[in-house]
This record gives sequence, structure tokens and C-alpha cells, in this order.
Amino acid sequence: MRGAQALVGSLVGAGVDVCFMNPGTSEMHFVQALDDVPEMRGVLTLFEGVATGAADAYARIAGRPAAVLLHLGPGLGNGLANLHNARRAGTPLLCVVGAHATDHVRHDAPLESDITAVARTVSGWVHTSGDVRDVADDAMRAVAATSERGGQVATLVLPADVSWSEGGAPAPPRRSAAPEPPDASRVAAAASAVGAPGAVLLLGGPALTERGMAAAGRIAAATGTRLLVETFPRRWDTGAGRPRADKLGYFAEQALAQLDGASSLVTAGARAPVSFFGYPGVPGDLVPDGCPVVPLADGSSDAAAALEELAAAVASGDGARGASGAGASDADGADPRVSGAGTAAVDAVLAPHDAPEPEPGPLDVRSLCAAVAAALPENAIVVDESVTAAAALAPALQTAAPHTQLALTGGAIGQGPPAAVGAAVAAPERPVVAVQAEGSALYTVQALWTQAREQLDVTTVLINNSAYSILRVELARTGAGEAARSGRAGRMLDLSDPTPDFVSLASGLGVPARRVTTTEDLLDALRWARDEPGPHLIEAIVPALG
Amino acid sequence: MRGAQALVGSLVGAGVDVCFMNPGTSEMHFVQALDDVPEMRGVLTLFEGVATGAADAYARIAGRPAAVLLHLGPGLGNGLANLHNARRAGTPLLCVVGAHATDHVRHDAPLESDITAVARTVSGWVHTSGDVRDVADDAMRAVAATSERGGQVATLVLPADVSWSEGGAPAPPRRSAAPEPPDASRVAAAASAVGAPGAVLLLGGPALTERGMAAAGRIAAATGTRLLVETFPRRWDTGAGRPRADKLGYFAEQALAQLDGASSLVTAGARAPVSFFGYPGVPGDLVPDGCPVVPLADGSSDAAAALEELAAAVASGDGARGASGAGASDADGADPRVSGAGTAAVDAVLAPHDAPEPEPGPLDVRSLCAAVAAALPENAIVVDESVTAAAALAPALQTAAPHTQLALTGGAIGQGPPAAVGAAVAAPERPVVAVQAEGSALYTVQALWTQAREQLDVTTVLINNSAYSILRVELARTGAGEAARSGRAGRMLDLSDPTPDFVSLASGLGVPARRVTTTEDLLDALRWARDEPGPHLIEAIVPALG
Repeated sequence: MRGAQALVGSLVGAGVDVCFMNPGTSEMHFVQALDDVPEMRGVLTLFEGVATGAADAYARIAGRPAAVLLHLGPGLGNGLANLHNARRAGTPLLCVVGAHATDHVRHDAPLESDITAVARTVSGWVHTSGDVRDVADDAMRAVAATSERGGQVATLVLPADVSWSEGGAPAPPRRSAAPEPPDASRVAAAASAVGAPGAVLLLGGPALTERGMAAAGRIAAATGTRLLVETFPRRWDTGAGRPRADKLGYFAEQALAQLDGASSLVTAGARAPVSFFGYPGVPGDLVPDGCPVVPLADGSSDAAAALEELAAAVASGDGARGASGAGASDADGADPRVSGAGTAAVDAVLAPHDAPEPEPGPLDVRSLCAAVAAALPENAIVVDESVTAAAALAPALQTAAPHTQLALTGGAIGQGPPAAVGAAVAAPERPVVAVQAEGSALYTVQALWTQAREQLDVTTVLINNSAYSILRVELARTGAGEAARSGRAGRMLDLSDPTPDFVSLASGLGVPARRVTTTEDLLDALRWARDEPGPHLIEAIVPALG
Repeated sequence: MRGAQALVGSLVGAGVDVCFMNPGTSEMHFVQALDDVPEMRGVLTLFEGVATGAADAYARIAGRPAAVLLHLGPGLGNGLANLHNARRAGTPLLCVVGAHATDHVRHDAPLESDITAVARTVSGWVHTSGDVRDVADDAMRAVAATSERGGQVATLVLPADVSWSEGGAPAPPRRSAAPEPPDASRVAAAASAVGAPGAVLLLGGPALTERGMAAAGRIAAATGTRLLVETFPRRWDTGAGRPRADKLGYFAEQALAQLDGASSLVTAGARAPVSFFGYPGVPGDLVPDGCPVVPLADGSSDAAAALEELAAAVASGDGARGASGAGASDADGADPRVSGAGTAAVDAVLAPHDAPEPEPGPLDVRSLCAAVAAALPENAIVVDESVTAAAALAPALQTAAPHTQLALTGGAIGQGPPAAVGAAVAAPERPVVAVQAEGSALYTVQALWTQAREQLDVTTVLINNSAYSILRVELARTGAGEAARSGRAGRMLDLSDPTPDFVSLASGLGVPARRVTTTEDLLDALRWARDEPGPHLIEAIVPALG
């Protein structure tokens, strides 16, 4: 058996049965093995960043890793930005990078480069397979490594001769790492913190599952603790019937205002918040002075279980205040206590299914987000790369049908279109709605082709305001003022002249598309996209900011 | 003066006055400086790989570096593949990577990553600017470094606070490195080698300028030495009126056949040839057994000057045989000698302007290449990312109007559309004709937008055969046979279902486009593209191989 056959067969045995790929010559035997191992689903992408972004989202939804197959150092380079996002998300992801045959390296052929140096910047585990007899077990070690540290990228460099040689043998899966269990002393400290008025519970990473959110809701109901969610969650089960929680704002001043006056900041699956970028004279650390940070569970732990233990602790009265008294008194010791959060108290913290009617007429960002929320199908996956529109999208979605949100965890834009691919492959029964800024979409627009090839149920709402709007805001913040809209500097942030036409782009990649300029037309297009199988793109024209 | 202003002003003073960019928040002060330093031309790209590929081609044509401006580690990742190509081309290129403010690094914010580790894999020089007082001089050191080792990428990491702080001062340019002058003993050894029958002169890198080619022609005329050109030249002045020279074939077996029987292989600006990929049982080193390699000049030397010295040496009779005796006798000592190559002898080695009439009717790769050659404007720049079609394109262009070819030096596909941008910015008076395979184009299709934004004179002839044809050939070579066209493996190499529609894609990015299926229509479209200002794309539908 060739190395590639042993490798692919073993991956399937370990539950890795999807490979997003963009192969080249050195990967031909891996590709050929798809004919021998029909359980492995190969998904072709036209650009490596699509493959890596799809694998990231796949694992966030499926809860187990996909593989990507990339072509040497340049292929890894093209996939690097979305591997960076996966690293920041703590996503289990198996990255297989084909390389020159072992005895070809000495020739320093044109495609030779330092693959491992690049791979190490995004991977928790990197290994180059050296012998066909080892390759299947190397892959099993890699798969096991993806579960370590709460989830990480593991990169296996695969020389062509290790793939093509005979002598491979399948290897059994290895045990995957379990997340850290809850820590009793942390639970006790957190219980004490949320027992005081003004506590904030910041949820992130693994805390944002259905189970973690339910526990957070019980904590809020029992104690009146305010719930916040990190700005860019990897996977958040939210919407109607789940606890209300505001997202932490993107700009430092927004986050500082939200945290102002917090008596303590309990973190579950989230890190203590820091500013996304540094600015002159603005603190990078967003925790208010004197506010203690109380870590309940970090990103590599079973944060949902920790929240359940915390909910049980506050329900048993240890440190808990009754929800009814939460805002009524600031004298915590005197608060009426309840033995747990009653049904009514829990219901009070849950978001109703009450998406407000969107304003008719010409679209703006607010009416667009309201329309998306109002039309959101039950159990949808929302891929959020809305960038400037995010501030309007998050509150609109609170009261939409229950859904799962995936966000841009690492700030490397061009994550949305690939993430929609991965989410739809992971959950073919769930509709995917991608709310996508146009500037970001243009980094990985090739993902639309894979959506068409695989006939994925993805509706992309493409927000086109003909500018890198977020950068216009930033340029204005530098003091450049008017230059943000005109002049030579401003032109570097302007996407008009020419304005990309996403109906043409989507059609060129095989995705049916419509352009809309009013709320009514957007709602109509959302129905069209929902009723017809396969992917669709709706280009929504909105006015530029500023 | 802010650091960014000092930096940009100093770059202009050092002759770096074009910056291909895709900026983000951490680069906002660099962008703002464009309003203060109007001599710097900022060229916006929608994806970083477009910026780096454009800068590579710009320097190949302009003979001096451009800058690129990228956004942190993920931006560098997106630009990495074309920086790899630049590294392989020996291109002088200044890569400025914006980074978090120095005191923000400790927060490990979402976009933080190991920029220098990635940069080192493609750069000969990497430095992180640490203080606003140094930044302009750091940039001058970087520009000087781009000229070292025959040309290389120099990466300056630019923390946001170094950009935004006051206290910068312009710095004067530093002396750039000169290429190594010819080595007299190497010239003598080469003269001796080309004096023997069956010698082959392999030209590459810096040898392929007008001047180097002219000298090579004189050597061929005087000695009968056969001229070959490396498979992927960074910049080749060729076509009618320049010496005929075949390109070394891409596949090992082709190159081995071309070199079979060579008495010696003299290299000028080229490395001794190696196989692009390793294959089972195929040698990686393509130099025939027993054939000595005689290095006249390597890629970091003044190879054109070395060829001129060699031409003078053989003209003075030192080791030279008359061209007339080249093929007529194999007894070299007895050959009639000439004091130099006469005009008639030189004319005999030059390609005539005699592009054959293309076959009318439905297009195939051969008639497509013939049509491009027949219609090629005088002094054009041909960007060749034709991939599978390259074998037909190279001979067709030999007798086309004199032109300059740019090839894919590092094998990282997606170089053509950006290279067309850079070439056109470097030489606005020269028409650019990009012969482009569809699979490769899809990696960096965003370059079309920059062609439209800057109204560049680029005609892209997009060869669409709905497949990664080169990989079909490779898959068949693995022994997979029929699977190359069908089955689950074959589907990973197939670009139909759906077939990308480049007329829609180009239109969506603001480039007028037409689809053609016959030679007559292609010729008509080439006239349309030539007569109308600005960029055009012609999608030429050809049958898939195999």
C-alpha cells in the first residue's frame, strides 16, 4: 500500500473524513488515494485560503477536525491568513502540506522553501514525515495533537516520495486530549464574585455553546450578573430563547464604556479583553482600573462545564443574590436570596423571538441587519464578516430565531466566504447565512465557486458600500479628517472607480445572484434564496459611511 | 515630522516612488503620508498577493525596486506566494509590513503573530524598526539591501507607533550593491568550452537583457554554440531581431532530450538545470552524465557583461570556431577560425519577424499562441503564466515582434495577473499582453480590479480549458490513467461544474471582456483590446487536454 493510501485510510478511521484541498504535483498521490478511500470527501477550492477557512469553520460546527491539503510553501502561504484565524479560534485543524520528494530537496528546485518555519507560526504541532512506514501513524499523532491546548492547528509536511512509496500501513487512531475540567477553587471564587452587585461575566470560546449559554443564563437569573460576549466568538449559540448577552464593542472606547463600573470581571472561555489595535494614548488593556479579573475557565478548558458548576453553586445559595433584587439594591448582604433561579427568573434573561420589522425603503446598514434578522431561518448558521456593520448586526440578531454565529477570530479578513463553505459542509441540514462586507469578500471570493460546485445551502448577503469603511473610520481617527474621503490617501480606502459588481462576480463563479437597494427587495431576495436549493448571493447596496 | 512621513519621503529620495498596497489600521499613518509626499504613487490592490506580484514585475521591468505595504502577519501571508516568486527571480523588492504598536505587542491581540519568522523565508534582509528616529534610515538600509546578492526581498517591519510618532527625520539614500563583475578565469574557461563542438550556452536571470542576448548571439554566430534559455526567465528580451534560443522544457524528459549529447554546459545567469519536481526513478539533476558545467556568471553577477567579454574572447579567436564550421565538422582543432562573427553570421542566428499565420477555425492551444504571436505589438511585455500552453507559446513568440517576456520564476501560481499590473505601471508606454491559464488566474483574479482602477494597458488572453490540465498530465503520470479524467480524484482537477465565466468575472472587476472560440474572433478581439485604452480580457475557450 502506498503511503498516501495508508494516510488517507487512517484519517478516515480517526474520523477525519473531509479534506478541503488545492493540490499540486507533489500531492498527486494523495489525490489519487481518493479513488481508493471513498469515505474521504475531497472538496476542491480554487485558492488555499478558501480551504483553510473552510476547515476552520467546519470544525467549529462539526466539533471535529477537517483536513486541508496544500501545495508546498507557497500553498501554505496562501492558506496562512485563515490558519491564523483558526489558531485564534482554538480550532482543531489538520494541515497537510505536500513537499518535494526527500531526495529532491538538495536541488533547491523553484518551489523549495522553508515550510516548517512558516507552519510553526500558526501550528501547535509540526512534523515532517520521513518514511512511508511512519506516515499513517504520523497522521494519527497529528490528529491527536489537534485536540491539545483546547484545539489547535497540527501541520504534517508530506514529502512526495513518502506519499508515492509502497510500504505504508494503516495506523489506529490515538486518544485525543480532553479539555481541562472545571477547577473547584475557581468556581468558588467566581461564585463569590457574581454574588456581588455589578459583576460582569465575559463569555468566549468554548463557553458559547448551547450548554454554556444555558448555564450562563441561570447564573444571570440567579444573581443579576451582566453577560457579555467576546467581540469575535468562534461559535456562539444565540438568538431567541437563549440568554441575552451584548457583544463587547470593537473599538476600545466602546468596550471601556461597557465595562465601566464593573465590580469584577469573571471570564469563562474568554481572555481578559484587550484593544484590537493600539492607538496613541488609548490603553491596550480594557479592564477598568481596580476591577478584579476572576478567571473561571480559560479557552482550553471545558468552560461550559465550569459555567454549569458555577450555576449550581449560585443556585445552592452560595454567593447568589436573587435576580429580582439585582438592580434594586446595592447592599448585597441584605438581598433576598433564592434557592435557585426560578423559571420566571430565567425566562426574564432570555431573548424573546421578536425581530423588529425592518424599516421599508432604501437600504441602510440598520435596515439591512433588521431584515436579515427578521428573515433568519430557524437553526441557521450566521457567518459574520460584516465588519463595519457588525455593530448593527449583533443587537438585531439577539431576538432573531435561534441560530449559531461564527465570527472572525483573528482579524485576518477574507474569512467569511470560506467559513460559509465549511459550515455548510459540516451541517448540510442547516441553512447558512453569510453577512459579508465587500472589501473582505474580495480576498477569498473564489469560495463562491466551491459553494456552487458542492451546491451548498449558503445565502450570502453582500454589503456593498464601495469602501474599506472601517479604515475610513480609522483614517479619520488619525486626525486626517477630510482626507478620509478624498485625496490621495483616501483613494487607498475607496472601492469605487470601479465599484466591484458582485452580481457579475458571483455569476462568474456559478452562484445565482441579485442586487437589491431597498428593504422590500432584500426581503424578497432572502425568500428567493431560501426557497431555491444551492447557494445564492444578494448584493445589498448601502450608502458609504462618513 | 511623523515617522511615516520621514519614511515615505526618504523612499522617494532613494528612487522608490511606487507602493503597491493593501493597508489596514496599523498602516493608516503610512497611508496618510501619501497626502504629504505626492511623489509617492500609491497603487491599491484588493488582495496582498496582487501587491507583491506587481512589485516583483515592476522591478523586473523598471530595474529598481517598488515597495509593498502589507498589514501584519496575515497580510504578509497573503503576499507570501508572490514574494516567493520574487525571491526566485532575484527581484529587488521592499516589503513594508505594518505591525502592532510596540507597547501593544504584550497584549497578544488577535492580529499578533510572528511576522519576522515568516518574512525570513522569502527575504534576504529583515528588520523591525524600533524607534521613530531610526525609521527613515532603516528604510534606506532596506532599499540598499534589495540590491544585494543580485537582488532580493528586504522586509521592514513597521510598528504603528514608529509610524505615528513625531520625531522622524528624512535619511539620505545609501549606496546600492553592484553586481559581481565578470571573472577573467571563468571567461577563459567558457571560451574554451564554447570553442568545442556541441557546447550549449544556458542563459538565465540577468543574462537575458537586450545586451546579454546580443552578446549571446555573437557567441553563437562565432562558435555555433547552441543557446538555451532557462524554463522560467525573470525577464527575457526576445522575439524578432534577437538570437533564437529555445527554452529548456518543463518536464525532465524534455530537458534531458534537449541537453543530450552536449559537450559542455556553459551557464550565464542561470543555475545548472534541475527537475521542477522529483518523480520516482527520474533524476533531479538534468545535466547529462559526463557533461561538464562551466559557470560563466551566476545570477548575482553582471552576466550580460560576462557574455560580452566571452563574445570578445571568441571574436579574437581565442577558442572560437567559425559559425560556418559549427555543424560541418566535429574535429574542432581543424576548424577554420574567424577573427569574429561577421554580420551575416550574426544575422543567421537572429530570429526573423515571421510569425506564421494562425490556423483559422475553432481555437486550440496552438492556434491561440500563433494568433497572440501574429498580433503582438512591437515592444510589448508578455506576461507568461500560460502553464500547459507554454510549450506552444514559446516557439510561437520566437518570431513575433521584439518583446520582453516575464515568467513564473518560483512556481507559485497566481503570478500573472499581478505581474501584468506591475509591468504596466513600470512601463506605461509599452503594451502588456498577459497569456494566462484559467486555474492560475483564479488565485489572484482581484488584480483585474487594479488594472481597471489604474487604467493600465493590459490585454489578458485567458485560456480556459476548464481544468487544472497540468495536473491531469501529472495524475496520469502517477499511473492513475483514466482517473485523471473521471472519478473522485479526477474531479479535484476539474474546473467545470461550474466552469468559471471570466467575462463575468472581469466585468465584475471593471475590465471589459469578450469570449472567443475561433481564431478569427481572437484576432478581432486582440485588435479591439489594442485600439481601446485601458485593460481588456479575452476569454479564449479551448478544448481540455487528454
